[in-house]
Amino acid sequence: MTASVIGVTEQRTRPRGRGRRPADEVRSEVLAAAGELLLTEGMAGFTFERVSAISGASRTTLHKWWPSRGALAAEAYFRTVAGTLAFPDTGDIAADLTEQMLAFVRLVTDTAAGRVLADLIGSMQTDPELAAAYREHYSAPRRALAVTAIEAARDRGELRDDVDAETVVDQLWGACYHRLLIPDQPLTADFARTLVAQLVHGIARR
Amino acid sequence: MTASVIGVTEQRTRPRGRGRRPADEVRSEVLAAAGELLLTEGMAGFTFERVSAISGASRTTLHKWWPSRGALAAEAYFRTVAGTLAFPDTGDIAADLTEQMLAFVRLVTDTAAGRVLADLIGSMQTDPELAAAYREHYSAPRRALAVTAIEAARDRGELRDDVDAETVVDQLWGACYHRLLIPDQPLTADFARTLVAQLVHGIARR
Repeated sequence: MTASVIGVTEQRTRPRGRGRRPADEVRSEVLAAAGELLLTEGMAGFTFERVSAISGASRTTLHKWWPSRGALAAEAYFRTVAGTLAFPDTGDIAADLTEQMLAFVRLVTDTAAGRVLADLIGSMQTDPELAAAYREHYSAPRRALAVTAIEAARDRGELRDDVDAETVVDQLWGACYHRLLIPDQPLTADFARTLVAQLVHGIARR
Repeated sequence: MTASVIGVTEQRTRPRGRGRRPADEVRSEVLAAAGELLLTEGMAGFTFERVSAISGASRTTLHKWWPSRGALAAEAYFRTVAGTLAFPDTGDIAADLTEQMLAFVRLVTDTAAGRVLADLIGSMQTDPELAAAYREHYSAPRRALAVTAIEAARDRGELRDDVDAETVVDQLWGACYHRLLIPDQPLTADFARTLVAQLVHGIARR
C-alpha cells in the first residue's frame, strides 16, 4: 500500500539480489525512490523502513551508506531537484538570477519541496549528521554553482569588480529561505523579481 | 544548584504568594528569569520546571500563560535582546543599517543568542505554537521596526521611491539568518558591511 502510493510497487516483487548489481546502480535507485517518497509525503513519513520497502534495498545497506534518515533525505532531495534548479547562462546575469529565483520560489511554493526543505533545515539545527549531509550534497554545491555564474558575469563586465559573490547568494537565496522558514511575508513571483532588481541596481536614490 | 548557576538563587526562598502581586509583575519576572536561563544554556535545558524553580512562579501559572516551552522561550528571548537590537536613527540609513547588521552579527556570534535563535527557528518548523509565538513576539515586531526606518529614509529622499522595504529586510537580516542556519560561510563584520554596501549601491557595473 505504501509503495503503490508513490508508484513503485514493482520494486517489492523484484528479487533482492543486491549482490548481483553494481552498488552505484542500487544507490541511484535508492536515492530516486527516497526522493519520490520525500516529495510526496515530506519528512514525517520518511523512514529507513519505508525507503527499504519501496527501493528493495535492505535496511542494513541503507544504514551502511547513510548514518541517519536525515542524511539520506538530504542527498535524495538534492538528486531529485537538481534538474529543476540547473543554472541558466544567457549572458545576462540579472535575467538569469531572476529566472533562478522564480524557479526556486515555484519549487518551494508549488510542491512539497518547501515543506521538505524547512523540515530538513529545522532538523539539522540539532542533528549534526543531517547538517553535514545537507551542506555536502545540497547547499555547498548549489552555492558554488551560483558563485561561478556571478563571477563569470563580473569577469565579462556586467557586475562591479568588487562584487562579493558569496554575499550575493545570501542576499538572493538566503532571502527566500528567510521567508520560507519565518513566513511573516509571502514567497511570490513579485518578491523574486524585486530581490534581483534591488540588489542589481541598488536601493539608494541617484 | 540549577538556580545558582544563573544567579537567581534568592527566588527560591521567596514565598510563592503570587496572588498578592500583580500578574504583570510576575509575568515580567518570569520572562526575565527565562531569558537569562535561555541565553546561558540554550534550548536544551529550557523547561517549564526549571523556569518555575528559578522564577518562583508555579508551573500551573506558566502553563496558563504560555502554551508550550517554545512559546515562553520566544517571548523571553525577545524581551531579553530587545535593548541590544534597538534601531538607531541618525538620518543616514546606510550607516544605521550597517550598525544594525554589526550588532546582530555580534549578538549571534558572541553570545548564546545565535544557538538559541537557530534552535527556536529549527523547532518552530514542526511546532505551530512556537512559530506563532516567535512571529508575534519577535520576528514581526522586529520586521516592523526595520520597515519603518527604511520607509522614513525613502521619505526623506535617501532611498528610491519604489524601494520595497519588506524585501530589504529579507536581503539584510534574512541573509544573516541564512548563514546562521546553513553555515556554509561565516557570519563576520565584513559580511555585515558588504550586505549593506551591495544592497544600497547595487552590484551592477556603472
